[in-house]
Parts: sequence; structure tokens; C-alpha cells
Amino acid sequence: MAKTPETEHPVKAFGWAARDNSGTLSPFNFSRRDTGERDVQFKVLYCGVCHSDLHMVKNERGVTHYPVVPGHEIVGVVTEVGSKVEKVKAGDKVGVGVIVGSCRQCDQCSNDLENYCSKQILTYGAPYIDGTITRGGYSNIMVADEHFIIRWPENLPLDAGAPLLCAGITTYSPLRYYGLDKPGLSVGVNGLGGLGHVAVKFAKAFGTKVTVISTSLGKKKEAIEHLGVDEFLVSSDPQQMQAAVGTLDGIIDTVSAEHPLVPLMSLLKPHGKLIVVGAPEKPLQLHAFSLIQGRKTVAGSAIGGMKETQEMIDFAAKKNIIPDVEVIPIDYINTAMDRLLKSDVKYRFVIDVNKSFNAH
Amino acid sequence: MAKTPETEHPVKAFGWAARDNSGTLSPFNFSRRDTGERDVQFKVLYCGVCHSDLHMVKNERGVTHYPVVPGHEIVGVVTEVGSKVEKVKAGDKVGVGVIVGSCRQCDQCSNDLENYCSKQILTYGAPYIDGTITRGGYSNIMVADEHFIIRWPENLPLDAGAPLLCAGITTYSPLRYYGLDKPGLSVGVNGLGGLGHVAVKFAKAFGTKVTVISTSLGKKKEAIEHLGVDEFLVSSDPQQMQAAVGTLDGIIDTVSAEHPLVPLMSLLKPHGKLIVVGAPEKPLQLHAFSLIQGRKTVAGSAIGGMKETQEMIDFAAKKNIIPDVEVIPIDYINTAMDRLLKSDVKYRFVIDVNKSFNAH
Repeated sequence: MAKTPETEHPVKAFGWAARDNSGTLSPFNFSRRDTGERDVQFKVLYCGVCHSDLHMVKNERGVTHYPVVPGHEIVGVVTEVGSKVEKVKAGDKVGVGVIVGSCRQCDQCSNDLENYCSKQILTYGAPYIDGTITRGGYSNIMVADEHFIIRWPENLPLDAGAPLLCAGITTYSPLRYYGLDKPGLSVGVNGLGGLGHVAVKFAKAFGTKVTVISTSLGKKKEAIEHLGVDEFLVSSDPQQMQAAVGTLDGIIDTVSAEHPLVPLMSLLKPHGKLIVVGAPEKPLQLHAFSLIQGRKTVAGSAIGGMKETQEMIDFAAKKNIIPDVEVIPIDYINTAMDRLLKSDVKYRFVIDVNKSFNAH
Repeated sequence: MAKTPETEHPVKAFGWAARDNSGTLSPFNFSRRDTGERDVQFKVLYCGVCHSDLHMVKNERGVTHYPVVPGHEIVGVVTEVGSKVEKVKAGDKVGVGVIVGSCRQCDQCSNDLENYCSKQILTYGAPYIDGTITRGGYSNIMVADEHFIIRWPENLPLDAGAPLLCAGITTYSPLRYYGLDKPGLSVGVNGLGGLGHVAVKFAKAFGTKVTVISTSLGKKKEAIEHLGVDEFLVSSDPQQMQAAVGTLDGIIDTVSAEHPLVPLMSLLKPHGKLIVVGAPEKPLQLHAFSLIQGRKTVAGSAIGGMKETQEMIDFAAKKNIIPDVEVIPIDYINTAMDRLLKSDVKYRFVIDVNKSFNAH
């Protein structure tokens, strides 16, 4: 008889899972593996709610294994380490982001780009090397290979810092890789949500002039007054958009809803770069001429490698880059998902996992 | 009464023009301006037939002013220079490519990127600074500002070298700019026509391993035996394409007919670049995931600046990079256009302008 999630491993664990494509989450008993010699076991304190969690619980990408325990912005405190672990010790604060495994041998892995390894293992909902399905941070306990553990800086808040593990690295990495981290450059951020508001904070920290492009005029006041955004464009206003043609060196496009690229391309200076980090389901459409005239680029980026993720977390701690979050108990998660779908959050939900599960 | 093309300037000229969107070319009397103090006047010897000439004579881009005298791969011998010209003297061999003007003041012009100046003036069919319409190299005589004149290397053939002025720089510039010019890289060339076969020659000269992707198996033998192509993929063969997934550092996509990008994207290694230099009329379609997974790039490139064009011509002369051409008389041009539409040319038609017009 096949083992159940509750019995397949020796360590009892508890979390919230979605059982079907309604996406509704509810309590779920399962189990975690024993702490292997390279493993770090930790008590989960906080876990961010990423927009992709919403896609995954509803199986919108067609790859979800149910039951699914989401969560890949996980922060906690180490409870146990394996005999060969060198990176952390019991009592240390740690984080786990979007991946918990990769082949460790290919060109990508050899170049600290585990995030582009074709055998990378996602933190939840993916087959692990032992054949079991990975389960994320909407749970009381985590275990992961130390290579995929991030050391948490002392002065970085555990709750508000959690979203850096996905939203942070997803925006930091392309700003760095595509050279949009130079003081004086003009950087656009399309969409002011979980990813977008963190992109703004990093871009500002790099000394760039930041323009937010948004469908919603309602976000303008706070964007300028609170986030320090330099310019705010309402994408549905043709006059505003026309006035900004050819002004941006690059744009981080965080919008995962379908949206036209041509207006964004026109905002770019010659040699400008539109970097896609949100992933609309339908194909992007763009005219070849909008690439050729002005030698423009459309490119993608996916999270970051482990070395760069640690660098990003340390940079955030040093520069005091802290996401704006709404901390919620786990039993609010279904309401939070509904609100997330309507972009009704400034700007990221973070589950207070420890408090939620101590209450049980 | 408005002046006619024949009388608007003092210097009598003769060429072939299309009068309407049938695209049929026929003899045309017009005129050229006097040689200004910064101008170079030259007798046209050869002119390449670019695929975009075909689009322009038929007004397929909706921007054609009739009558249109095409031709922007123009080689000739200087007959007269203005008093302030320093670059060349009478009797020198020279070339003119795709542009004959730009603002000379903007950031692009200041950085030797006249090809990305928003006020660039195309060699034919565009309003010149004096208000007249520019006319190209399907004509007996040319005049251009010396800044847009290319010095022709002694050992580069005048006829076969002409296509370098558009096809050459269009492929050389992106190979350089996007870093696809490093020995040992694997570079793909999509489409083996006028642009593609020159892209192959430059990519080989840079020491890369070259893979041609083509719809036509018929081109394989010659590509390998004559052009020295390392691999040849027939794009309609799923097994061949599958076997080559993830093998290329970059692709120069020269195809201007509509074609799917997804199979090309899949040939790229992580961090690979698809560079679009052909311009299909319909929008390109690509999934965001194909950019995000593997951090891939789709980008464009348009000819090159004057400094880089001279560098390219000198490099071609030094490395003996010479397009494969079929030299034709001007009265063959309508047949040549029909054959070009069917890709029935290896690989570029070049008009023997001097011989054609001496016969008249």
C-alpha cells in the first residue's frame, strides 16, 4: 500500500493545503523527512503569499499535484542541522525561497545559476530526489539542503523581509544582470504590486530615477509620497504615455495579467530593455520593427541563484529595503487569496505561521 | 508651378523607378543636387538589390513616395568633391549604404550610432533636408554628404562587395553588439538568403560554430560545402529541431516572412539571444515563459553607424568576406525582383549599373 503524505516521512508536520482546483486551502497533516547530513530543519515563523501561489492552488498552469502546500518565501529559526552542515547552526534565522534543489553539476549550477538548472526542484509541488512531492512554507516545519538555505541578516525583519525571497530576488537579479543598476539611469516598473513595489525599492537603492507605469491612478499618491517614485504614468492615459516616449533605459514588467507590450516598448530609449518577470498565460505580441528600430530588447529573468539571493538579502539588510506587508493569520488565507486576485493588498500578504499554529 | 524630379536640381541623372504599387521598374529621368561643400558626387558602378527594395517598390510598408528609385548598396567612383571634403578625392572608390543623413547632434549621433538617430534620412524614398525626396543607387550618379560615404578598400571587389553596405552591416553589427563574435560560441543563422549567407560568413570569420536553420533542405549541400556551415537544421523536421534544443548561444534571425519564434527560442542555451534583423509584417508571438525560463533575450538591430560600417568593410576586406552575387543588367531588374520573391537567387543580385547605362 502506498504511503500517505502523513506517513511517508518520519517527522510529523502540519500545514494548509489546497485539495483541488477550487484553490481553497484547509488544514493538512503531512510529514517531513529526517534531517539528512546536509540538511537544515527549521521552525517556520513567517511565509509570504506570492501571486504564483494563487496560480498553483488553482492549477492554472496545469502542473499542480494535489494536495499542494504552497509557500516559497519562508523564514524561520533552525531547530536541527545535519552532521556535515557548515552554513548555519541551531538557533540561527534562515530563509528558503523558490527552489530547494538542482543538479549541482551542470554549467548553470557551476556558475551559481541554480535557478536556470534544468533539473531545479521547486520548493513546493515538485518531485524531490527521494520521489516525494515538495511542500512549502504554509506549514509549521521545513527541511532543506543547506545549499538552498539563506542566512538571515540580524537587522532584517523576519515578517516583512520574507517576500524578498521571491519578489526581492525576482526584481533584484534582472536589475543587476541587465545593467539597470547604475545611478542616473531611468528605470520603469510596470505594475505596482508585490513584485513591483520591491522593484521600486531596489531601483531607488541603486540610485536610478524610477517611473511606475500602472493601470490605477489610485496608487499614485502613495507611490510618490511613500515609495519615493519619481514619475507615475497611468497606462490608459494616451497623453501621459505619449509624453514619456523614449525616456526609459529599461522597464521591469511585473504584470502577469495580459497586457500590450507596444506602449511599453515605445517608452524605451534606443537600446532600452523590457524585462519580463510576470508571466501572462497568453503569448506576448510585439512587432519586429519595435525591436529593430532603436535596437531594443525584450528579455526574461527568473528569480536568482543561491549566491545572488544571499547577496540580495544582505544588500536589502544594509540598505534597509523592506517590503510593505500585511501580516495575516493562516485562517485568513482564503480571504487573502481573494483579495490578492483583486490586487487589494499593499503590497504583500505574509502569514504569521508560528502564531497561527501555536493557536491550534 | 512645382518643379519636377527632372528639374528640381541642376545635375541631370538617370535611373530606374517604380511608379506605383505594381512595383514594376522602368527608366526614369530625374536630377541630383550640385555638389555642396561637404558633398561627394560619384558615378555609380554597382548597386545591390536588397529584399527591402522589393517591399518599398510595392509600398508594402505604406510609406513609399512614388516615383521611387531604390538601391542602398551603392558602390562607385568619385567624380567631384566639395571644398571642405576631407575623406575622399576624385577617382577614389566609395560606397553608400542605407542612410545619407542624420541630425549629427543627438546622443545617438554623438555616439556614432547615426542608424538610431530619430532624424536619420534613408538613402531613397525619404525627405532630404532640402525638402526633395532621396533617390537611390538604381541610377547613374549619386551625391551624398561625406559623413555618409564609406571608403572602399582596394582589394574588395566592387560588384560582390556592394551588398556588404546593407546585408553586411545588418548582420555584422548585432554579432558584435550582442557578443556573438567570440571564438567557440555556437551561433545560429535563421534563413539562408541575402542577409543569412553574409551572417554565416561573418560568424565563421569570428571563429564561431555556425548552424543554419532553413525551411529548405535543398540548400544544405552548398551551405556545408561552399559556405563552411557546421550544422544545417531543416526547421520543418521536428526530430532535427528537438535534437538541437539548448545548443545555441545566439541566433541571427534574418527571415522577414512570418514564422514562429518558439522553435527558435528552444534552440537557445540559457541566457541565449535571438536577434531579429528581418521584419515580418505581422506581430511576433512568444510566450513569456520562453523568455523567463533560461533568462533568454529577443532583441533587434538595424544596420550600423557610419564608423561601424567602415570598420565592417575594412574587416571584410581583410578577412576576404565577399557576398555571393549574381550580377545583372538593370533591364533584368523586374525579373530579378520576381525571382527574389521566390528566394531564387544565390544569394544577392547586384546591378551592373555602369554597364547598363553605358548601353543606353
